[in-house]
Amino acid sequence: MSRTFTLAQIAKWIDGVVRGDAATRIDGVAGIREAGPGQITWLSDDRYAADLRVSRAGAVVVPSGYGETPMPAVLVADPERAMVEVLGRFAPPVPRPEPGVHPTAILGEEVVLGREVRIGPHVVVGRGAAIGDRTVLHAGVFVGDQTVLGQDCEIWPQVVIRERCRLGDRVVVHPNTTIGSDGFGYVFAGGRHVKIPQIGTVEIESDVEIGANCSVDRGKFGATRIGAGTKIDNQVQVAHNVRIGPGCIVVAQCGIAGSARLGTGVVLGGKVGVRDHVVLHDGAQAAACACISKDVPAGSTVIGIPAVEHRQFLRDRTSLRRVPGLLEQLEALARRVDQLEAAADD
Amino acid sequence: MSRTFTLAQIAKWIDGVVRGDAATRIDGVAGIREAGPGQITWLSDDRYAADLRVSRAGAVVVPSGYGETPMPAVLVADPERAMVEVLGRFAPPVPRPEPGVHPTAILGEEVVLGREVRIGPHVVVGRGAAIGDRTVLHAGVFVGDQTVLGQDCEIWPQVVIRERCRLGDRVVVHPNTTIGSDGFGYVFAGGRHVKIPQIGTVEIESDVEIGANCSVDRGKFGATRIGAGTKIDNQVQVAHNVRIGPGCIVVAQCGIAGSARLGTGVVLGGKVGVRDHVVLHDGAQAAACACISKDVPAGSTVIGIPAVEHRQFLRDRTSLRRVPGLLEQLEALARRVDQLEAAADD
Amino acid sequence: MSRTFTLAQIAKWIDGVVRGDAATRIDGVAGIREAGPGQITWLSDDRYAADLRVSRAGAVVVPSGYGETPMPAVLVADPERAMVEVLGRFAPPVPRPEPGVHPTAILGEEVVLGREVRIGPHVVVGRGAAIGDRTVLHAGVFVGDQTVLGQDCEIWPQVVIRERCRLGDRVVVHPNTTIGSDGFGYVFAGGRHVKIPQIGTVEIESDVEIGANCSVDRGKFGATRIGAGTKIDNQVQVAHNVRIGPGCIVVAQCGIAGSARLGTGVVLGGKVGVRDHVVLHDGAQAAACACISKDVPAGSTVIGIPAVEHRQFLRDRTSLRRVPGLLEQLEALARRVDQLEAAADD
Repeated sequence: MSRTFTLAQIAKWIDGVVRGDAATRIDGVAGIREAGPGQITWLSDDRYAADLRVSRAGAVVVPSGYGETPMPAVLVADPERAMVEVLGRFAPPVPRPEPGVHPTAILGEEVVLGREVRIGPHVVVGRGAAIGDRTVLHAGVFVGDQTVLGQDCEIWPQVVIRERCRLGDRVVVHPNTTIGSDGFGYVFAGGRHVKIPQIGTVEIESDVEIGANCSVDRGKFGATRIGAGTKIDNQVQVAHNVRIGPGCIVVAQCGIAGSARLGTGVVLGGKVGVRDHVVLHDGAQAAACACISKDVPAGSTVIGIPAVEHRQFLRDRTSLRRVPGLLEQLEALARRVDQLEAAADD
Repeated sequence: MSRTFTLAQIAKWIDGVVRGDAATRIDGVAGIREAGPGQITWLSDDRYAADLRVSRAGAVVVPSGYGETPMPAVLVADPERAMVEVLGRFAPPVPRPEPGVHPTAILGEEVVLGREVRIGPHVVVGRGAAIGDRTVLHAGVFVGDQTVLGQDCEIWPQVVIRERCRLGDRVVVHPNTTIGSDGFGYVFAGGRHVKIPQIGTVEIESDVEIGANCSVDRGKFGATRIGAGTKIDNQVQVAHNVRIGPGCIVVAQCGIAGSARLGTGVVLGGKVGVRDHVVLHDGAQAAACACISKDVPAGSTVIGIPAVEHRQFLRDRTSLRRVPGLLEQLEALARRVDQLEAAADD
Repeated sequence: MSRTFTLAQIAKWIDGVVRGDAATRIDGVAGIREAGPGQITWLSDDRYAADLRVSRAGAVVVPSGYGETPMPAVLVADPERAMVEVLGRFAPPVPRPEPGVHPTAILGEEVVLGREVRIGPHVVVGRGAAIGDRTVLHAGVFVGDQTVLGQDCEIWPQVVIRERCRLGDRVVVHPNTTIGSDGFGYVFAGGRHVKIPQIGTVEIESDVEIGANCSVDRGKFGATRIGAGTKIDNQVQVAHNVRIGPGCIVVAQCGIAGSARLGTGVVLGGKVGVRDHVVLHDGAQAAACACISKDVPAGSTVIGIPAVEHRQFLRDRTSLRRVPGLLEQLEALARRVDQLEAAADD
């Protein structure tokens, strides 16, 4: 946490140009309002220009061509992207188990371990499972029989990945998440709910990140699939045989019901529900709390319960707010008709 | 996974009649669209008849009396029910801990173990707890003091069941679920929230299944109860002193608040919220995302936020969509009144 | 569970006055409807007066000045508050790990343990972490490097608290909860979602209680904060850089998005969603299932999706329900205009 860099060094990391004192020493990153003299902050757009004027930050990263700033600046093409690099450089090292297998870990027969794996205390790896090179299993992780993890995965404490699942490379799974639990399927027969065996699996492609306390059920048969580069937040439920395409964003507490499909680059806001068998085509978006019960065309945005296209949602709200006015107009009109009738009666 | 059976054998399992080549060899199960020549699929109703015509499946299970199919068929009374059997036969064996107690498991004093229990690595069983015959505790399960589990239960990894809870026979609990945590109860006194001791317990009857990452709180006093044969999906919250009747279905991410009651055979769609002390009578149903704030009569279906009877929900939507038309009609009528007034003035 | 006390003893605990037989023996607590002859119940207001008349309870705690009761009574200023004491006295002892460090626990270098800590089986405490006096880590808890826990904390089984977090005194965390997981932040660059390093931490003040299966993400930088005395129910999601003030109540399944702020004494009903960067000022309240997308003024109550002030919500519902009537009135008026026009044509 106490490493210090000059602005010149920082500019070099992010291919930026220093304006002001390049020898300014920086020891951390903070938001515009919170940053103090030793910290660097950044500005993506003019929305926060007023905050910048009163900021106590020691330096700021701004878009190329940005005007005067009250403190030294680094100009770059894309400040948001640049900050990924800067944050990474200031990041304290992530604690991981020692290389190798902790003596309290329990490995089944015929487990295949890649090079430089790190397997922490109380981890359990089932028979015939494979752990790729440099993959990290933090304390208490459970990996079931014949499950295969790729290279450079990071599986945080207490994650459970049941048998016969497959994870690609660089997959990150946060604590207390469950992968490969039985799907929720029953047939009502003989007066009771009879369980449908859930004999499928889960396939997670490379560069997927799954948050904490999530659940990804195995397929009834075939696989539940999550496409490459998709990012899933905390407490998300992915039911059996769901197929999520590549590059999707699924915000916290979403629930995606059985056999639903998300195309490429779909974005679900927080707490969105997707009904079973529904399809969200490429680039579809859903606002937070939407409850989606029918297919969403490519590129369109839905909102509400039940979810409708954003335009329809606005029309509905306008309609609702017009009712009191309508009532008044109707009453005024009725009075005019009263008068006309009275006049006609005369 | 590589076991192969003839259609004749499969027909025998499900009491069906083969039409076509009874020697057809089948090595797996798949959906109508995904199935290949070695796989069997099924058809419950005519909705998927078009898919069947172009299916590459090696065989299909259809209802008795169903017409021609492009591949050999097995005719049965209830294809859905039959597929439970077929899937079970093709299911690869479920990996379980070895019979007995794993050397890394920690058992308290006076624990009572039934016959043929399987207690996995890093399991902890508290003092005076009892584990019924053939019950399986997968790796990392925690069972608190004096908790009693019946026979043939399957408790998946990392489940926590706190002290003094009771589970019946054949109860299944999926990974990372919590049973018996304190209910959420405080009295505001002296300017702060003072915790109400939660001294009750949880009672789960036989044949209940509880999904992954669920929470079932113990009673404030008395018990939180889940009735026989009820099935609960992932990420469901059951608060203190909730009573759920037998044969209910609770889909993922539902939340049932304190002292709410569900009768027999109640069905909650995904993400349903039930307010504290509310009663859902026998056979009540709630559509996904409903937020239920008052009692629901037996057999009726509610929907929406706040939840209303399904008919009322449809009426409300119709009302909303009629407003723009109403406005137009009102304006047209106003113009006619204008003309009448103008004529009267003449 | 089998301890018995006289009504005289109970009255002494709660500074109450006995009316009726002070020697009545009580061995437990139950609700008005469930209580039997050996149990004490209570009544906070007249809503349950009818239940009390037919209650089989052995005794009842009522507000001072309350009228006749069918069984002996203890009169106190605040029955709800008094019952906290009574429940606490009847509570069976909470099972905890033995004092000291269980031989299966794994402690990193330079861990600092306070006096009388209890560290259960299979616990992992990372390098440089500190555990305060009398704090209890139940089985399977993970505490990351340099994380600091105060005194008298109770951390239930399988909780994961990652590195560099700080918890105050008397903090309670229920099973399977995750604290300090990475926030959900990406920059879309080069056709993919690039992770923004989440280098911040989590700071939880004293007397906070966090339910089971919750997730509290660490800050992107700086800290995610939860203020003193705030109580959080199960399955709540707290995103990176959220700041929750003191004395708040957050009911189950709420989701609070990145950088949102809750003031002092804010109350969120179950399943409430709060959008990122939104501010709920002191004393704001949100009804269950509200989806809050803009700031809420101090002391006001919001409801609905999207959330609006409670009054607006009621107006909107009234509007909706008026539409069918409006339509009828409009048609009636149109008929009158028809007649006027017909008369004018004559």
